[in-house]
Amino acid sequence: MATLQRPPRRLIPGFVILAVSTMLLVQLARRSPVLLVAPPGTAARGAGALVRNVAVRSASTSSSPIVSAIPGITEKYKSLCDRLKEINQLSGAVAILGWDEQTMMPPGAASSRGQQKAALAAIIHEKQTDENLASLIQELQEGKHLNCEFARANCRDAKRDYDLESSKSKEMAKLEAELEADCFNTWVTARKENDWKAMEPKLKKMFDLKREIAKATRPDLPTYDGALDAFERGMPSSKLDSIFSQLKKDLVPLVKEVTSAKGYKIPPELKDHDFDVKKQAEMCIEIAKDIGFDISRGRFDVSAHPFTGGVGPSDVRITTRYSPKNWAEGLGGTIHEVGHALYEQGRSMEHQDLPVSRALSMGVHESQSLLWERMVFQGRPFWDYATPIIHKYFPHTKDITADELYKAVNHVQPGLIRTEADELTYPLHIMLRYNLEKSLMEDSVDVSCLPKIWNEDMKRSLGVSVPSDADGVMQDVHWNVGAIGYFPSYTLGAMMAVQFYNEAKKQIPDLESKISKGEFGPLKDWLNQKVHQVGSLYASPDELLIAVTGKPLDAGCFMEYLQEKYSKLYSL
Amino acid sequence: MATLQRPPRRLIPGFVILAVSTMLLVQLARRSPVLLVAPPGTAARGAGALVRNVAVRSASTSSSPIVSAIPGITEKYKSLCDRLKEINQLSGAVAILGWDEQTMMPPGAASSRGQQKAALAAIIHEKQTDENLASLIQELQEGKHLNCEFARANCRDAKRDYDLESSKSKEMAKLEAELEADCFNTWVTARKENDWKAMEPKLKKMFDLKREIAKATRPDLPTYDGALDAFERGMPSSKLDSIFSQLKKDLVPLVKEVTSAKGYKIPPELKDHDFDVKKQAEMCIEIAKDIGFDISRGRFDVSAHPFTGGVGPSDVRITTRYSPKNWAEGLGGTIHEVGHALYEQGRSMEHQDLPVSRALSMGVHESQSLLWERMVFQGRPFWDYATPIIHKYFPHTKDITADELYKAVNHVQPGLIRTEADELTYPLHIMLRYNLEKSLMEDSVDVSCLPKIWNEDMKRSLGVSVPSDADGVMQDVHWNVGAIGYFPSYTLGAMMAVQFYNEAKKQIPDLESKISKGEFGPLKDWLNQKVHQVGSLYASPDELLIAVTGKPLDAGCFMEYLQEKYSKLYSL
Repeated sequence: MATLQRPPRRLIPGFVILAVSTMLLVQLARRSPVLLVAPPGTAARGAGALVRNVAVRSASTSSSPIVSAIPGITEKYKSLCDRLKEINQLSGAVAILGWDEQTMMPPGAASSRGQQKAALAAIIHEKQTDENLASLIQELQEGKHLNCEFARANCRDAKRDYDLESSKSKEMAKLEAELEADCFNTWVTARKENDWKAMEPKLKKMFDLKREIAKATRPDLPTYDGALDAFERGMPSSKLDSIFSQLKKDLVPLVKEVTSAKGYKIPPELKDHDFDVKKQAEMCIEIAKDIGFDISRGRFDVSAHPFTGGVGPSDVRITTRYSPKNWAEGLGGTIHEVGHALYEQGRSMEHQDLPVSRALSMGVHESQSLLWERMVFQGRPFWDYATPIIHKYFPHTKDITADELYKAVNHVQPGLIRTEADELTYPLHIMLRYNLEKSLMEDSVDVSCLPKIWNEDMKRSLGVSVPSDADGVMQDVHWNVGAIGYFPSYTLGAMMAVQFYNEAKKQIPDLESKISKGEFGPLKDWLNQKVHQVGSLYASPDELLIAVTGKPLDAGCFMEYLQEKYSKLYSL
Repeated sequence: MATLQRPPRRLIPGFVILAVSTMLLVQLARRSPVLLVAPPGTAARGAGALVRNVAVRSASTSSSPIVSAIPGITEKYKSLCDRLKEINQLSGAVAILGWDEQTMMPPGAASSRGQQKAALAAIIHEKQTDENLASLIQELQEGKHLNCEFARANCRDAKRDYDLESSKSKEMAKLEAELEADCFNTWVTARKENDWKAMEPKLKKMFDLKREIAKATRPDLPTYDGALDAFERGMPSSKLDSIFSQLKKDLVPLVKEVTSAKGYKIPPELKDHDFDVKKQAEMCIEIAKDIGFDISRGRFDVSAHPFTGGVGPSDVRITTRYSPKNWAEGLGGTIHEVGHALYEQGRSMEHQDLPVSRALSMGVHESQSLLWERMVFQGRPFWDYATPIIHKYFPHTKDITADELYKAVNHVQPGLIRTEADELTYPLHIMLRYNLEKSLMEDSVDVSCLPKIWNEDMKRSLGVSVPSDADGVMQDVHWNVGAIGYFPSYTLGAMMAVQFYNEAKKQIPDLESKISKGEFGPLKDWLNQKVHQVGSLYASPDELLIAVTGKPLDAGCFMEYLQEKYSKLYSL
């Protein structure tokens, strides 16, 4: 089904495949309900106060010693950091085992690897729920006596992590791990055999358990919000509802206009030719290095399901998939993963192994991969730089112009499969899933009705008939590995990417002319400073967006970008 | 320096590179002083009684449930096993991190990997010295009320491991890890720059510390024996003295005879040709699979310093080095590592993750690699099988006969470097190192005198003048990573290999005609059953040798083998 004109999206791209089984998900899943955190001594304020207040926080980290005027607090903070670092280092070991499992491990080692990971998981859980850790967290009182905002953010997130981890019973965690493995295995076969009936009871169990976990770990939130918060801190579903409904209202007519317009016809050199996969890989590595991926702190490998894994910032491992017919998938996929990797490589060394150095949310992580994939790779300036490189590696394309390549990677066509969707129809796939998982978690829809609702909605929103459950309700891995509440992050990330990129264009002189010359350093450095180094300093993506761009998430910016781009591309 | 006629030996072959930094060494280093362990209810007996007694123990493991007539003991044993398994699973994680470090890890990750490993090491040490573990071990009384000899061996080795681990202070262990890293780094530069003066003070510190550790962990043994016991349980240096002095007496005149005789001249097709390294790798993998390496439970990779690592029995990872001029190094190296790997893959699944499933000693491990390298690869029957394969991959060798290949891989030539030494002169390199490390540990020689003694001994025993300390006293990594007491295992392994192989010839009908047809299964299965599956059931290599061959270690067998083989090869 993969065709050239559909820019690539991974099964679960980025850190997520590893995350589901290993660490990032664990880290993210431990975040508790988040609204805007007020600095010590102030009352909670509205967004206006926040704009004034957080905007003055510089993105650069401070290297002055962290101290407190209250006796003993500095030492207690140091003890807390030692414990948090240890937990993170053990989690790093799990991440490497996870990468190895996906790329290197012989099949016969599955069971022993499972046992190694289980042994480590038990120890990590023990350390995370240690009562000495709890005492330190309590005594530090969210770090209010510490002179450093990064230190305070560490205390804040240490508390959240502890609260979440300790609110989930050992039995619950065990059941969760078992069900995730069981459900995933069932899904692999059921999808292959288009057997919804085999999937249904397992998926029902999964939603039942996740409902229970959401209630136990985030009792103050509506049930679905409890699941969502694991991936997207500070984003209540009420807000998401309004964002998505506005988006849908504007997007559906645009998609209609675009699909009725006369599209660009991709030349045969770009779609009817075998692109040598070795040359594709060489080309992708050349471009990834140009963009700024640091190979001395990372690796490139090939895998069936591309992902970025490893341990940021010093050991970030990208995998890509290459197919001979679809060079754009390999290149777009590489650049997407490089976007994730730059975030991980750009994490603060000063706060290494501490919560504040982690990525802020799944949506923010996606914003970094999508900024490079959509704003850069699918933008026109990039092709001034990249066209000669394509010609060099694939001389038969020598007559294809930058304009043609730009159009080729931006072809719109509504389809069945989310991972193959273009930039314009992608959010419609997300909204379908969001509405379904929300209703399922809120118990207003039963798992048994899923296929029917799915197929009706696909017809209504995308005009597509679903021929089988395998290509319908069973196409995605997410729910089957317990990643309920994950889907919105894709579209939130796409929206944030536009806002970050717009701001970058304002702040970096001649950004797009730099990109057209292959000068990616200024954009990378800007993102490093504004987003990567900042990590989890802010308590929510909105707070980060305000600090970097001056305003919170805004679906309007996203629609404006799409309108402008596709009006031009399709001469609307 | 590597030339065709010198069969390959790795810098530190086999599990040892990983072991030094990770697990096998840790496992082995934890064994306490071992003589022959009497079964419960009997007094210690002499070798004669042992022969009668242990010979009846079958090598096959029992799968009947492990129980005890004493109430509570079965449950306590199960608890003990759970704890031991957890420790081993965590150690398995460390082993994979170690393999990754040697083969995959980007250079920039060295520091974060160090921290991950240190965090894990601390937890493993904590678990190993846990007082609940100590209570269980004590209550089980070496398993004397259990109905299974494998269970009793687990209890026995659990006690040894605990005694050793808990007798080393935390500070000592920390200092040891730091000094090993520091000394290794100094050695890398000092050897490159031929700078003994830089090495000397570090090495002095290393011997001082290892002396202290040997005294603390094995207070009942002479100091050097304490170090030796970490690698070769049940082998006092007094016994080694007599074995080595007999060996030297017989070996020196044989080496003289052989080197004065007219040797075989290796044809230019085998030494003046570039052997494509990709084809070498393909050929080696074909032969490794023929021998019985199970690729579904292991991997093949290329690395500068070949080793076998991973986690036995389900994840055993071989690395090999190929050089275009020396095809024999690649093939011999592969087969050597396959020998180690077969031991690891052959470990008992029934007792997985328990001490009894571990390799018995470094010498026994080497006996398995050397049996395949020297008895098989350097034996004449193998070349009936392998010659057509060499011709297939390297058609320019089509006129070279099996006899010529056999002679080519058995060329004797005294030289400077241990890792390049042939089968005949290798033990002389070992004895030199054994005498030196023993004197250093016993404080009868000072580190400052090392180069002088080294050079004099090389002249005397091998007739070789040492041109530089880099190719003399600084050539080996062992002492610099704290592996003092390790060297004897190489020659003990070579001796055991001969005894095991002689017995295999008796017990397996037409073994050598099978080998000449490439039927390696019977030999592999026999070793699986007699050695690999048995693991650490016996308390010493001598006990294992008696069980398998009917007699303990016997330098005479080794000399007989060498005499016969080289008399024929050199027409003495």
